[in-house]
Amino acid sequence: MTKRALLLIGDGMSDRPCKELGGKTPLQAAHTPNLDRLATEGINGLCDVVRPGIRCGSDTGHLSLLGYDPFQVYTGRGPFEALGIGMDVQGGDVAFRCNFSTIDENRVVTDRRAGRITEGTAELAEVMNGKVIDGVTCYVKESVAHRCALVLNGMGLSSKVSDVDPHEEGKPLSECYALDGSPEGIRTARVVNQFVEVSIELLKKHRINLDREALGLPAANCIVPRGAGQAPNLRPINELHNVNSACVVETGLIRGIGRFVGMTPYDAVGTTGGLDSDLDSMGRLLIDVLVQHNFVLCNVKGPDLCGHDNNPAEKARQVEKLDAMVGMILERSGPGLYVALMSDHSTPCELGDHSGDPVALTIWGEGVRVDAVTRHDEISCGPGSLGRLIGNNVVPILTQFIEVQEKYGA
Amino acid sequence: MTKRALLLIGDGMSDRPCKELGGKTPLQAAHTPNLDRLATEGINGLCDVVRPGIRCGSDTGHLSLLGYDPFQVYTGRGPFEALGIGMDVQGGDVAFRCNFSTIDENRVVTDRRAGRITEGTAELAEVMNGKVIDGVTCYVKESVAHRCALVLNGMGLSSKVSDVDPHEEGKPLSECYALDGSPEGIRTARVVNQFVEVSIELLKKHRINLDREALGLPAANCIVPRGAGQAPNLRPINELHNVNSACVVETGLIRGIGRFVGMTPYDAVGTTGGLDSDLDSMGRLLIDVLVQHNFVLCNVKGPDLCGHDNNPAEKARQVEKLDAMVGMILERSGPGLYVALMSDHSTPCELGDHSGDPVALTIWGEGVRVDAVTRHDEISCGPGSLGRLIGNNVVPILTQFIEVQEKYGA
Repeated sequence: MTKRALLLIGDGMSDRPCKELGGKTPLQAAHTPNLDRLATEGINGLCDVVRPGIRCGSDTGHLSLLGYDPFQVYTGRGPFEALGIGMDVQGGDVAFRCNFSTIDENRVVTDRRAGRITEGTAELAEVMNGKVIDGVTCYVKESVAHRCALVLNGMGLSSKVSDVDPHEEGKPLSECYALDGSPEGIRTARVVNQFVEVSIELLKKHRINLDREALGLPAANCIVPRGAGQAPNLRPINELHNVNSACVVETGLIRGIGRFVGMTPYDAVGTTGGLDSDLDSMGRLLIDVLVQHNFVLCNVKGPDLCGHDNNPAEKARQVEKLDAMVGMILERSGPGLYVALMSDHSTPCELGDHSGDPVALTIWGEGVRVDAVTRHDEISCGPGSLGRLIGNNVVPILTQFIEVQEKYGA
Repeated sequence: MTKRALLLIGDGMSDRPCKELGGKTPLQAAHTPNLDRLATEGINGLCDVVRPGIRCGSDTGHLSLLGYDPFQVYTGRGPFEALGIGMDVQGGDVAFRCNFSTIDENRVVTDRRAGRITEGTAELAEVMNGKVIDGVTCYVKESVAHRCALVLNGMGLSSKVSDVDPHEEGKPLSECYALDGSPEGIRTARVVNQFVEVSIELLKKHRINLDREALGLPAANCIVPRGAGQAPNLRPINELHNVNSACVVETGLIRGIGRFVGMTPYDAVGTTGGLDSDLDSMGRLLIDVLVQHNFVLCNVKGPDLCGHDNNPAEKARQVEKLDAMVGMILERSGPGLYVALMSDHSTPCELGDHSGDPVALTIWGEGVRVDAVTRHDEISCGPGSLGRLIGNNVVPILTQFIEVQEKYGA
């Protein structure tokens, strides 16, 4: 019997009392026999995924859950945006969120979103992708609508550089400069400025822009970077926790983080990251992956979407879908399975965004010290035996149960 | 509806079981319908204001509660004593607690407290206030009885310097020296030694001392510094927590800390910092201030005084006064108010001083995850859903409820 652990994240699943549910949270309102079985047979508590009161994102939340301290390793959204759209990002790379924008002949930004361009950005990105400037390779990839990402790969780079984006239309492009005056910052800023020049040169004559201009649409004639962040050099998760890890997730951002820390990614057919996602398919894949890997991260996105959309009833239904998936896993997995069930942050429906409330946490498996909690929800788990933990406490608790954690001391 | 938060501190309010109250704490013994309403409708827990077991002061406690780490920013009592008597202190200033002492012609300290002088110290301080030595401005202000404070303002100062106070009568004044041999320490010590000379020169011929000598009283003929501390360069609280803050407090020390971190101070008529303080007046002011500011610190001093005086029955009465003030606030404040009710430290009556016990904590307002606790006291709050937090977790919890906290990540 191989012991193995499933870290099961209902994205944004924890909530606050909802008027529409008669003062219950979606977790309380949902019919969840399988989640409640985990709670009843497990140990329970609350978890501040980053720190108490902090409204974390899915990126900072998952970094913390996987055992990294976001306050040390998270310098900006750039690298995680790039990971999220499937770009290859290495530790030390400096990455930017960018817009395709429209500038005039005086380099004044006339439309920050290039008429909210929706098509052709892949081809526009492609012509610049891989350019080498001063020994630094510049990778570009399109994202949703007018957005794209820029990743700089090379030696001696720094994320302490200013935005090219003037953040306001009618203003000229800003020159990128080193915020701290460091040689690395100066070098990075020079590469960024040259890259912007290259983008202007290559985009102005691009067929897609000529077509847009012919149609009277704003040309996507410049790439405008902002929000520099440096990808951290993280110890690979398999080494950090002595596991053989995989991830089964639905969204680019979480898949990107999983790949970045060295997890093997698997995609279940029919999982869309939407409300219609096929969690049956995801459950079947999880059962298989848990044979090959002794530590598996799974993230189900549906609950978070309902939190952002202020839809508690649908959120409860998404929780019930997750419950059914858990039921299948409990039924078909052999002995030796441990499950940590939680959210990566709360997304209260009435707030419509992430909050700093702690999330419900249940840990289930052979030998846990069963407490009196019988429901997996934000209120019931409060008095549980786990007390109140922070996110990066969770994996060590799992690795000692699955018996892969080295003893610390003699 | 503007969301806003009141951080309401009953100074030293938490306690231990008191024999005189049949084993109850003053919070348990008091009749507190309004505090109990907060507990019943809120979430509850225990809070270690600095760290578990640490007997903090009101200064270190409030620093921690406001989101600063006292272990990083608190180098000594000097700056906070100076703030407490209304002196202007800047980040980087080095400040000392001082005595007016009596020395003989050989600079031997014959009376460390100058006959416990009670009158005339303001005039004595005044003649030295503002002297400039080696580019450093020396500010002096009288405090209670023989005490005063010295603040050095200038470049390149250090608090790593020794005391001039020999801490024993019959011994000569000690020479101030740099504890770490640093250039800043050497410079600071030189200024301190010269300042002591100046004080001797100016005080010996002062009318008040000539009068005292005529009456056979010890002359206050020297200022004797001790307890150097450097005022930290703190990020202003409004910037740190993205709030518009104010404080309504009763004591110089807390008002000084509030001003130092950039809170707008308001004083309620009739609040004395004593047992007779007019909390009705304070409550009315709070209601007004909570219209102008979205984050307000209030400190009520009475409970702490009773703790130091070993008077549990009176402490319970002071708690009941606080309860009445809370009742008025709940009745007259509109929707959108959040309250965090707690103490800055425990002051157990039977100890007569601050202890390292955690304090009761209640957080109340729209959307909190109501738990089963129905009383705000040190025992009842234990099993509450907040669990056990540390002091600088409290403000982030409030700022995410009042929706001013930036999301950390994506």
